[in-house]
Amino acid sequence: MPELRRDPITHRWAIIATERAMRPKDFKFDHARPPKGRACPFCPGHEQLTPPAITTVPVGRGPHGADWQVRVVPNKFPALRIEGETEKRPEGVYDRMNGIGAHEVIIESPDHDFKLHQLPRDHLVAALETYRDRMKDLQGDARLKFSLLFRNHGEAAGASIAHGHAQLIALPVVPAQSQELLDGAKRYWDFHERNVFDDIIRQEVEDGRRLIYDNGDFVLVAPYASRFPFEVWIVPRAHGTRFETTSRRTLDKLAEVLTLGLDRLDRGLGDPPYNFIIQSAPYGLDDVPWYRWHVVIMPTLTRVAGFEWGTGFYINPTAPEEAAEFLRSVRG
Amino acid sequence: MPELRRDPITHRWAIIATERAMRPKDFKFDHARPPKGRACPFCPGHEQLTPPAITTVPVGRGPHGADWQVRVVPNKFPALRIEGETEKRPEGVYDRMNGIGAHEVIIESPDHDFKLHQLPRDHLVAALETYRDRMKDLQGDARLKFSLLFRNHGEAAGASIAHGHAQLIALPVVPAQSQELLDGAKRYWDFHERNVFDDIIRQEVEDGRRLIYDNGDFVLVAPYASRFPFEVWIVPRAHGTRFETTSRRTLDKLAEVLTLGLDRLDRGLGDPPYNFIIQSAPYGLDDVPWYRWHVVIMPTLTRVAGFEWGTGFYINPTAPEEAAEFLRSVRG
Repeated sequence: MPELRRDPITHRWAIIATERAMRPKDFKFDHARPPKGRACPFCPGHEQLTPPAITTVPVGRGPHGADWQVRVVPNKFPALRIEGETEKRPEGVYDRMNGIGAHEVIIESPDHDFKLHQLPRDHLVAALETYRDRMKDLQGDARLKFSLLFRNHGEAAGASIAHGHAQLIALPVVPAQSQELLDGAKRYWDFHERNVFDDIIRQEVEDGRRLIYDNGDFVLVAPYASRFPFEVWIVPRAHGTRFETTSRRTLDKLAEVLTLGLDRLDRGLGDPPYNFIIQSAPYGLDDVPWYRWHVVIMPTLTRVAGFEWGTGFYINPTAPEEAAEFLRSVRG
Repeated sequence: MPELRRDPITHRWAIIATERAMRPKDFKFDHARPPKGRACPFCPGHEQLTPPAITTVPVGRGPHGADWQVRVVPNKFPALRIEGETEKRPEGVYDRMNGIGAHEVIIESPDHDFKLHQLPRDHLVAALETYRDRMKDLQGDARLKFSLLFRNHGEAAGASIAHGHAQLIALPVVPAQSQELLDGAKRYWDFHERNVFDDIIRQEVEDGRRLIYDNGDFVLVAPYASRFPFEVWIVPRAHGTRFETTSRRTLDKLAEVLTLGLDRLDRGLGDPPYNFIIQSAPYGLDDVPWYRWHVVIMPTLTRVAGFEWGTGFYINPTAPEEAAEFLRSVRG
C-alpha cells in the first residue's frame, strides 16, 4: 500500500509510492531512455497490456484499427490505490495515512504519434469531455478531496511512455500548494471585492503585451510573473470554480485556444517538452466567487536547480512580454 | 536591470533575469550540453574570464598552479544586480521591484575535476567558512532580507559549468516558501513548546530506520516525508537559527558528516547529480528558539512532472527507510 507522509514542518505531503518501488540499481539518471522496441501498451491491439478500461469513447473502426477514440485505464503502477481506508495515524512526531486515491490514464487517441493539438476539433472536445467526466465521477467518493488532471509531453517533462496520454490523480487531502492558490485568490477577493482572474483578464487585454490570443471565451496569456520561459495560462472569462462544471460548448471554445497555444509552442520552439495542468478547485468547493479554474502550460526549457528548490523563487531568463510577442508571431 | 515580479494570487516572486536574456533560438532543450573545448573560467590561469574576485582563500602555489584555495567572484551573468534601489511599485494589479541582490560564485578548489567530499578536511572547512563569511558579509546590506547558499552538481541538477562551485544569492524579500518553513517550525513550537528539529533528531536516533550517520554534533537522515529518492538532511544538534553564526569547530564537524554523506551518494549511486542547499533563517531573525539552520541534499534521480508542479505533492518511489539502509551499507 502506498503511503502519504506529512512533513512535520511545512505540512507538505509526499507519496511514498511502494507500488513503483525503485531500488538503487534502478536509477540510470544519466542515460535514462524510454524502453525501445517494446510493444506500446497504449496502441490498439495491445489493450491487454493495460488493466481493463474504466471507460472509452467508442468509434466505428478508425484508421488505426481501434474501436475507441479515447480510452481511460487505471495506471498499471499507481501512485495511489483506490481500495481501502485512509487510516490516518501518527508515527511519533510525524503524520501518515494510507495512499488512498485514484490514478487513471487517459489515452486521447489510438494513434501512437498523435499530438493533442493536431486532433480534429470534435476528437479533442471528446477528450476534454472525458477529462471532465472522470473528474466528476470521482467526486462521488467521499474519501477524495481533490483531483489533478495533467499531461506530461516529452521525456524531459516526465513522460515515461511515448504514446501521448493525460493522467488523473485524485487525493484524500487538498495539497498545501493548491490551498495556497485558493487562499491567495480569496485574499484578493477579500481585499478588493473583485475576482483576481477578472482583473488579470482586464489588464492583459487592455495592455496587450502579454496577450497571445483571445477568442471571447478564453484568453491565452504569458503570466506576469512567469516562472518558466514560455509559460502560458488559459483563463476562462465565464466564472466557474471547478473544471467539472464546464459545458460542451465551453470545452469547444477551450479546444480552440488550446490547439492554437500548443501549435504555436510546437512550431515556434520545435516540439518542446511541456507539462499541462488543469488547476481546478477541490471537491466540495462548489461555487465560490473568488476562485476560477484555469489551465497552465509549462514548457520544460530550463533546469530547476538548487535556488528554485531552496526558495520556491524562479529565475526566468525570458520576459513574458517577449514570449508573448514571439508566440503571437508564429505562423503555420 | 533584472526585475522581481509577484504573482498576484500566490504572492510568489519570479526573477525576470534580463541579464541572462534567452531568445527562442537559445533553447536547445533536447540536446543541451555544456560547451566543450572552451577554456574553463574557473580554472587557475583563466582568472581574467571572471569578474575580479570578491575574496580568496590564499595558498602557497599548489599542485594546480593556483595561489588560491577558494575563490569568490560575482556571477558574470547575475540573476540580480547589487547596484540600485528596489523601487517597489505597482504595475496595474501586479507588484514589481528592481532585481536588486547579490549573486556570487564560490569556487571551492582550483582543481577542475574536484568533488567536494574529496577535498582534504582543512580545505573543505575553509570552503564552508567562506560560505559562512560571504553570507555574513551581505547581511550588512539593509536592502537584503535573505540569502541562499546552494550547489548544483551535474548537468541534470542545473550545473552549467562543469568545474565545481557553489552559488550565493541574496534577495530583497523573504521567499514565500522560506517563510512557510519558518511559519511551520513556529507553529510546531507554539503547539508543543518544543523545537521540531530536536524532536526529529530524538525520534530518528531512537528509531534508527532513517538514520544514516550521527557524529554527536550532526545527524544525517533520510527525512520521513522525503520528496525525492535518496534525499538526505544534515541537522545540527546545537541550536542556531542562522548558518552565519556557526563556529569553525562546528564547521569541522559539519565537514565530516557532509564528506561521509556525499561520498556514500557518490559511491552508492555512481556520482548522481544533486542539489545542495543550506536552509538558513532570513537576515534579521537572529536567535529564535523554533527554527534551526540545516542542510538539504537532493539527488536528481527522477523527473519532476505535471503532478508535482500542479500540487507541490511529490511522488517518491523509494522509501526513506530503504534509502537510509542502502546509504548505511555503502562501503569505501
